Amino acid sequence: MKISEGVEWAAHCCLLLDWMGVDAPVSTARLAAGYGLPPAYLNKQLQPLVKAGILTSTAGKKGGFRLAKGLKDITLMDVLTAIEGPAEAFQCAEIRQHGVWGDEPASAFRAPCAIDTAMRGAELEWRRALAAQSLAAIQQNAELQAPNLRTQVQEWYREPRP
Amino acid sequence: MKISEGVEWAAHCCLLLDWMGVDAPVSTARLAAGYGLPPAYLNKQLQPLVKAGILTSTAGKKGGFRLAKGLKDITLMDVLTAIEGPAEAFQCAEIRQHGVWGDEPASAFRAPCAIDTAMRGAELEWRRALAAQSLAAIQQNAELQAPNLRTQVQEWYREPRP
Ligand code: FES
Ligand code: FES
Repeated sequence: MKISEGVEWAAHCCLLLDWMGVDAPVSTARLAAGYGLPPAYLNKQLQPLVKAGILTSTAGKKGGFRLAKGLKDITLMDVLTAIEGPAEAFQCAEIRQHGVWGDEPASAFRAPCAIDTAMRGAELEWRRALAAQSLAAIQQNAELQAPNLRTQVQEWYREPRP
Repeated sequence: MKISEGVEWAAHCCLLLDWMGVDAPVSTARLAAGYGLPPAYLNKQLQPLVKAGILTSTAGKKGGFRLAKGLKDITLMDVLTAIEGPAEAFQCAEIRQHGVWGDEPASAFRAPCAIDTAMRGAELEWRRALAAQSLAAIQQNAELQAPNLRTQVQEWYREPRP
């Protein structure tokens, strides 16, 4: 049960795009260079964010990614769901309907299994906490630790580079 | 990011063992029959629960599994950790230390990354909720839905069966 590394990559790329603050698409090569990531694989990891309406992508030589909305309107839940899909981590296979209770009528299982309910309830706490975390708030926390991050990114972005 | 089916199997087997209420090890075949599960694979899934001190296992012809403690002392968190391991689902690879910030001294990264902190914080909410759910409380909820579960299991257990 491991969250894809794409979540870390994607969340960081959103922060980086905001720090860059450029009014043009940023190439995958440039984003990848920002965190020492493999460009082709990063490109693949960012596609679901385009589909989820977090980023927009432009094809072509001057193409790349831009934020589709402000960081305050993107939560960790959005990023996680874009990459991992909307399915819950706990998937009940209704095993209670076999064996001992295999002869019960279907109506006996209308109420969800108590284990399933408890597992899903706990997972909901997690998703709620993720949904309460906007990338803007996270960026702010990062800048509290290191107030120069935006300047550093913009200087780095201006350096000539392949 | 899917939780192993072993979590559903193991949690249900703990409930079943308690409902059975027998003062002897219950064979994997019997437990597997309780939920229509493949015995060999169930046996494999239950081994980590033995290691985690939730079940005890006895080898041999009359061997099998018993609860190592009462359901009130086993939480969903215990079962999840036994099966999935203690590692957090979100694993930060410290990508912030490369690229733009590759030349920073190690001391610049002493404070954890704000994304990592937020992801881990949210996951902690989930684990807290799992740790607050004892199997005894879940069993009680199941019996509220169907008060006959214990009787049904004990009748089923007494039936002659391979
Ligand atoms: S039947 Fe799936 S968790 Fe109980
Ligand atoms: S460096 Fe890993 S989450 Fe930020």
